[in-house]
Amino acid sequence: MRYFFRVEYDGSAYVGWQIQPNGPSIQAHLQRALSTVQRCECRVVGAGRTDAGVHARAQGAHTDLPGEVDARRLVSSVNALLPSDIAVRDIRPVAESFHARFSARYRRYRYYLVERKRPLWRTRAWVVLHTVDWDAVRDNARHCLGTHDFGAFCRSTTDTENLVCTVDEVALEHHDDVWVFTIGADRFVYTMVRSVVGTLIDIGRGRLTESLESILRSRQRSRVGETAPACGLVLDDVTYDGV
Amino acid sequence: MRYFFRVEYDGSAYVGWQIQPNGPSIQAHLQRALSTVQRCECRVVGAGRTDAGVHARAQGAHTDLPGEVDARRLVSSVNALLPSDIAVRDIRPVAESFHARFSARYRRYRYYLVERKRPLWRTRAWVVLHTVDWDAVRDNARHCLGTHDFGAFCRSTTDTENLVCTVDEVALEHHDDVWVFTIGADRFVYTMVRSVVGTLIDIGRGRLTESLESILRSRQRSRVGETAPACGLVLDDVTYDGV
Repeated sequence: MRYFFRVEYDGSAYVGWQIQPNGPSIQAHLQRALSTVQRCECRVVGAGRTDAGVHARAQGAHTDLPGEVDARRLVSSVNALLPSDIAVRDIRPVAESFHARFSARYRRYRYYLVERKRPLWRTRAWVVLHTVDWDAVRDNARHCLGTHDFGAFCRSTTDTENLVCTVDEVALEHHDDVWVFTIGADRFVYTMVRSVVGTLIDIGRGRLTESLESILRSRQRSRVGETAPACGLVLDDVTYDGV
Repeated sequence: MRYFFRVEYDGSAYVGWQIQPNGPSIQAHLQRALSTVQRCECRVVGAGRTDAGVHARAQGAHTDLPGEVDARRLVSSVNALLPSDIAVRDIRPVAESFHARFSARYRRYRYYLVERKRPLWRTRAWVVLHTVDWDAVRDNARHCLGTHDFGAFCRSTTDTENLVCTVDEVALEHHDDVWVFTIGADRFVYTMVRSVVGTLIDIGRGRLTESLESILRSRQRSRVGETAPACGLVLDDVTYDGV
């Protein structure tokens, strides 16, 4: 039987979501914990890969387990085996046709920025010590809205890759001296959020004079700003029809 | 010349604010960093001691430095020497009569609670896995408001100690699956916030049937609930006249 579940993690200590030979991954920890509890080889599929150091508040995932399980007990057994920086929740049965990646309809990321050294945010936010024109950041960010080819903001591309994303949500908010940039879309291309945020900050600092709109239209990777560091990025939510 | 400044820290790795022989303290780190930068013996006085594992968003502190300093440069030099879990800000000259502890008029603490394993809050919140009646917690919390003898909620008392505090602010809010309990007063007695929070949760879980109002009035330490763990507590702010 197929089960859907949510995963929250602090990605600081990991090479990313996906299993890799060069270090610990979220996926490997989940597969090991589920396999131990269920006494079988469990494979875990995520809604999307997150890079090394990127966090998730609610990554979506699925796994196939032999037979029915007591979801509440499974959550508690698996969480007891997982390290403190990874946790699962909301394990529930879904149709065999459900797929954590292909059934996902919408993804939301948040990127956190602080303007001074913030111990309580040290693993969670990018420290930008320069003077930033936040109104310019907000104004430029709005141009992400809509359906665009995000090729300029995709680190590595192949000729056949689909670079078109429909962005439905962009916001920049300020709480407790933390700037939170929110972006939601049907899909994202590789390093898109970090590349958009880095470019917005370069524009806000005056280091880039071209507008985000113009860079986006150009589809030229050479025109974007720096890639914002992984530590500030959180996969906030993944939405599915009927889950 | 006397200087006032704010300190933010993640207290997880420390024996507390105050210098102690058994481990690293915030005060020791600050004195060492300031002394190195200023090339003199600097003593740092805080608004209040925080216990081992307790955090601060804006602890108040003062120090005496020989002559005038470039505050901006001093903040940046001291922060560069401090570990990533301690930072200073807002260094500014104050009158010789100013005292970080005795001049403080108001202190606000926040206590964070989560109802499931939350990797992104793992050093910052108390995980309460029991079912809690949060309305009962909120209703009981209100009885802290006003001027009371908080002897019941003070871990160690001497006969001469002043146990009377005037609480001006109590709130319980829920954001992103995190419960935030806020309490502000002119002063606090030892372990007061953690003892109030632990008692409120014991009431909310039905483990204590006596109301907080009745426990408070009794002034009997034996009637309170458990002491909530240090990791959920943050000294949020300290207010001074004219600073």
